[in-house]
Amino acid sequence: MTHFRYLSFLTDYGLEDGFVAACHGVSARIAPHADIIDVTYLPPSVHVAVVDPGVGTARRGIAVAAGDSVFIGPDNGLLSWAVTAAGGAARAFSLTNRDLWLTRVMPTFHGRDIFMPVAAHLAADAELAAAGEEIDIGGLVTLPAPERVVRDFTAAGEVLTVDRFGNVQLSVTAADATEIGVKPGGTVLVRLGHRQLTLPYRETFGAVAAGELVVYTDSAGLVSVAVNGGNAAQRLGLPPGAQISITAIPQTIHP
Amino acid sequence: MTHFRYLSFLTDYGLEDGFVAACHGVSARIAPHADIIDVTYLPPSVHVAVVDPGVGTARRGIAVAAGDSVFIGPDNGLLSWAVTAAGGAARAFSLTNRDLWLTRVMPTFHGRDIFMPVAAHLAADAELAAAGEEIDIGGLVTLPAPERVVRDFTAAGEVLTVDRFGNVQLSVTAADATEIGVKPGGTVLVRLGHRQLTLPYRETFGAVAAGELVVYTDSAGLVSVAVNGGNAAQRLGLPPGAQISITAIPQTIHP
Amino acid sequence: MTHFRYLSFLTDYGLEDGFVAACHGVSARIAPHADIIDVTYLPPSVHVAVVDPGVGTARRGIAVAAGDSVFIGPDNGLLSWAVTAAGGAARAFSLTNRDLWLTRVMPTFHGRDIFMPVAAHLAADAELAAAGEEIDIGGLVTLPAPERVVRDFTAAGEVLTVDRFGNVQLSVTAADATEIGVKPGGTVLVRLGHRQLTLPYRETFGAVAAGELVVYTDSAGLVSVAVNGGNAAQRLGLPPGAQISITAIPQTIHP
Repeated sequence: MTHFRYLSFLTDYGLEDGFVAACHGVSARIAPHADIIDVTYLPPSVHVAVVDPGVGTARRGIAVAAGDSVFIGPDNGLLSWAVTAAGGAARAFSLTNRDLWLTRVMPTFHGRDIFMPVAAHLAADAELAAAGEEIDIGGLVTLPAPERVVRDFTAAGEVLTVDRFGNVQLSVTAADATEIGVKPGGTVLVRLGHRQLTLPYRETFGAVAAGELVVYTDSAGLVSVAVNGGNAAQRLGLPPGAQISITAIPQTIHP
Repeated sequence: MTHFRYLSFLTDYGLEDGFVAACHGVSARIAPHADIIDVTYLPPSVHVAVVDPGVGTARRGIAVAAGDSVFIGPDNGLLSWAVTAAGGAARAFSLTNRDLWLTRVMPTFHGRDIFMPVAAHLAADAELAAAGEEIDIGGLVTLPAPERVVRDFTAAGEVLTVDRFGNVQLSVTAADATEIGVKPGGTVLVRLGHRQLTLPYRETFGAVAAGELVVYTDSAGLVSVAVNGGNAAQRLGLPPGAQISITAIPQTIHP
Repeated sequence: MTHFRYLSFLTDYGLEDGFVAACHGVSARIAPHADIIDVTYLPPSVHVAVVDPGVGTARRGIAVAAGDSVFIGPDNGLLSWAVTAAGGAARAFSLTNRDLWLTRVMPTFHGRDIFMPVAAHLAADAELAAAGEEIDIGGLVTLPAPERVVRDFTAAGEVLTVDRFGNVQLSVTAADATEIGVKPGGTVLVRLGHRQLTLPYRETFGAVAAGELVVYTDSAGLVSVAVNGGNAAQRLGLPPGAQISITAIPQTIHP
């Protein structure tokens, strides 16, 4: 494995406790040259992701090569969307080589004791195949893709994320929007539960007046709903997972 | 432009989402040598600041040379106090050179797609003038300075910030305090709304008993109100923007 | 003092304000080669810790050599557990050498003006003895060790920390548990206030069904209580400092 300059690290550890610090320290000991940053938009990297309620149980740890990067974490589906986004799994290994682990492994902190040291060794000089025994990429645990259906002039999906500004990101893609005939400058009918809203579709939230709702394609290429200067998730009562659909409203053409 | 070792990055993106990570990744690709840290007390740096509700609309992006640093962000006034603190704008450029942007620019994430890559290119090897067309520094948007008036033995101002300890920082400066005759060891009359408090003026909050209110000059050189071991903002009901004044109380001299 | 590649930094400053940034900037000016990370699990480092309600009063600042690291902060007991964990104080110095401070020292921000620049100078090229006058290591302020008593088949202690998942870490150690005959696979009687609970002792929280309470040795080697997929601190009403004891329940042997 070639030397990596970056090691990405994504967990649900939070910053209140010392968990992230412990893992950074592990990498600093093994791969002092490697800078650690959070996930996405990275140069070729070793990516470590840990959301792992089954830590210490039978679920295995894995290293998956995809695109120009390597993904490391529990085999519980957490890595699956990222691996797909990176081009799909090329090879996968079960983390069975204890030589790359910390000497003392505690059953509740594989992030510190297994995932991070393996990643740092790969970032330093170890070959990927040294991580453990090769496994069938067809046997990796995957999460189902977010729900979305495009039919007639309607794209139906779910709320994927709500960011700190209250912007509501849907599972509906920009391509879906194009397919049903929605484009910036137009108008869409938004259905959520029993409610219907007729909203402008614009390039950015700043294109409508302050306090107004707007539909747009966000920076990840997904259709989203925002309030200019406000919180759309709160206004509409839309948590992640909520069902929502958009329908193109044909424009009357004034020739 | 000379090579910068540091790139500073200040936004309202928060850490809950992946926005900051995305921007760090952009810099890592373009300027792998540059360390990214937050603003203030920095060596010569490229400073990126993004609080940008008008992203994607007509407001322009700018790069401003001031002191030994460069400031990059939206031209909405956000940079103006920092530029003044750094010695004032020497030159300014509108970010019109798309060669320094990411190839695909989304209208809602100029932090990732324009500001960060331009900053990283300047930190790497680009000349400041390569950022775009030079613009008149007199035409930059500026925020009004915080309100403060010094008259007779009173300095009146507003609450500028409340930090996480609940310490209340005023727009009144240490120089203002000196001018009206307030000095450590003395006593001040504090007026807020209809209330008046007579408080000790000390060098630090630890100089009064636990739980007591104290006025002092904080580490930024601004007059502040604290409770030793407590939360002054909560105790006094003082949010940012609240009106407040301090008046020197003459000391009886015991010769 | 040899060159340090790392400088660790632990404070109660939080991330809402610019305090941490200011300190990072100070280090960047003095020791541009040094990476700053949070505490624990670190390579040999200069460790800076600042929880310092007495800042600016008579309490002194100290630099303590312990193991292969140096600890810097206020002499208020904050450093004492870390120094002990690192092998105990070898030498200690009072931070009296103003040549290593920032030129302008504000009485409320020694983290920025004294602790960080001294640490960065030590990380850069200064000898430890340059920090100030040597002091008696016997005279350093120490915090009392957390309470714990092992007697008969019971280990009594207190709640040391509650992490963001709600896992409750006790002052009782894995060695204490072994001493009273508790081992993974067994059962323990937990006493808290007037309540008694009979709980499984396992290797990890994932070893019990979702929603079930479990006692285990955590990644720091301390006995802890968790709910698999839930929040034990909330369920049991256990804040830091709460009294708690565990007693081994003998297993009936089926030969």
